[in-house]
Amino acid sequence: MPRYRIIVEYNGLQYVGFQRQENGPSIQASLERAVEALSGEEVTVFAAGRTDAGVHALAQVCHFDLKRPFLEDTIRDGLNYHLKPRPISVLAAQEAAPEFHARFDAIGRAYVYRISNRRAKLALDQGRCWHVPVPLDEKAMHEAAQRLVGEHDFTSFRAKECQADSPIKTMDRLEVVRLGEEIRVLAAARSFLHHQVRNIVGTLRLVGEGKWTAGDVTRALHARDRKVAGPTAPPEGLYLTEVRY
Amino acid sequence: MPRYRIIVEYNGLQYVGFQRQENGPSIQASLERAVEALSGEEVTVFAAGRTDAGVHALAQVCHFDLKRPFLEDTIRDGLNYHLKPRPISVLAAQEAAPEFHARFDAIGRAYVYRISNRRAKLALDQGRCWHVPVPLDEKAMHEAAQRLVGEHDFTSFRAKECQADSPIKTMDRLEVVRLGEEIRVLAAARSFLHHQVRNIVGTLRLVGEGKWTAGDVTRALHARDRKVAGPTAPPEGLYLTEVRY
Repeated sequence: MPRYRIIVEYNGLQYVGFQRQENGPSIQASLERAVEALSGEEVTVFAAGRTDAGVHALAQVCHFDLKRPFLEDTIRDGLNYHLKPRPISVLAAQEAAPEFHARFDAIGRAYVYRISNRRAKLALDQGRCWHVPVPLDEKAMHEAAQRLVGEHDFTSFRAKECQADSPIKTMDRLEVVRLGEEIRVLAAARSFLHHQVRNIVGTLRLVGEGKWTAGDVTRALHARDRKVAGPTAPPEGLYLTEVRY
Repeated sequence: MPRYRIIVEYNGLQYVGFQRQENGPSIQASLERAVEALSGEEVTVFAAGRTDAGVHALAQVCHFDLKRPFLEDTIRDGLNYHLKPRPISVLAAQEAAPEFHARFDAIGRAYVYRISNRRAKLALDQGRCWHVPVPLDEKAMHEAAQRLVGEHDFTSFRAKECQADSPIKTMDRLEVVRLGEEIRVLAAARSFLHHQVRNIVGTLRLVGEGKWTAGDVTRALHARDRKVAGPTAPPEGLYLTEVRY
């Protein structure tokens, strides 16, 4: 019973999220249907990060088991054939150890959040960036972001629906850089709370606008109260970029 | 009767091209409707480059006249308001000299053609790159491209429907660079023939695959016969990036 590990890119815009749900199409169900079309087997596809509705991935990692073995290239090309015309693509497939688990074995996850910081509305980047038309000070945002690096109780940045056992997480890296009109927030940690990156980005926007100082971010963190931190940034700017094992 | 010059970004995927046509929505008609919604005036919007169906623009330049003057910021923000939710955005607006003409005054145009050169199908870049799954040698493509720089009769790279008076054009710059999995072809000239960039890219792909040599490109150029050059690359990889005056 071979286990396969695949790396998946997707545009999350028209999906309810990675996870199968009653209320619309999911990445998971699309992948499972493609595996069934290829192999004739009904499988469950597990992912490293259960991205929310509208969130994208450059390199989501998943695994699933098949009774009958397939060549790795056949898995990749066959799944891509059956995924057409959906905006989901299998970048790589390899046989994994039988005990490998895409979610529980992951020791690091990285996200990028893209903000288009220009006056005019988005045309080419519609649905792929958060459009913030007021000028943001990315240096102030970066400085404030450093207050969140390290081990903290992130209750203030945690969605109500979050199912994690503990609100304590270690942020390994949180960097804010500007590339012309675009601001990117790079976040890396072993794991994240539900909406953690989007709640942090929504808070850093307040800093970028000059409404909040870095000290306000520290105070919000210490308050351990979701209501005192900034709003949740929209999903379309968020990309899962890397999973480490 | 003030004349306005606007810089426009658009995703050409769902349009028949810049120019108004009977068979579907155009960028031109969308802009003209937005101008009318803002000003109440029926205008004609002229563009520097009449991009084809599916071709994108990062910075198309257009002009139009209004009887009643508007603030430049009102033009930009008002057109963007009326262009919602279309993937067309006015990046800038300014009053122009009464004799300024977006098309006839342009002295330089630049395009980028994006090729996604990877095995797996596209997810995030669907409709925004040409997907070429076989490995391409971008250095060989660049070397061959240099055969096309300078003044030449480009009949071999000209669409049958081309309305230009002469097939003789001067290619100022034609560079092929790789950025990871993506290959970009950068083309700059005073003006281009119909399909010229796409026909050149389709030909350079043959070089990238090792099917053609740089000498074959020179021979195709000298043949002055569309049938001997390579096929036309699809529109979705092409972006109008700059117009100079």
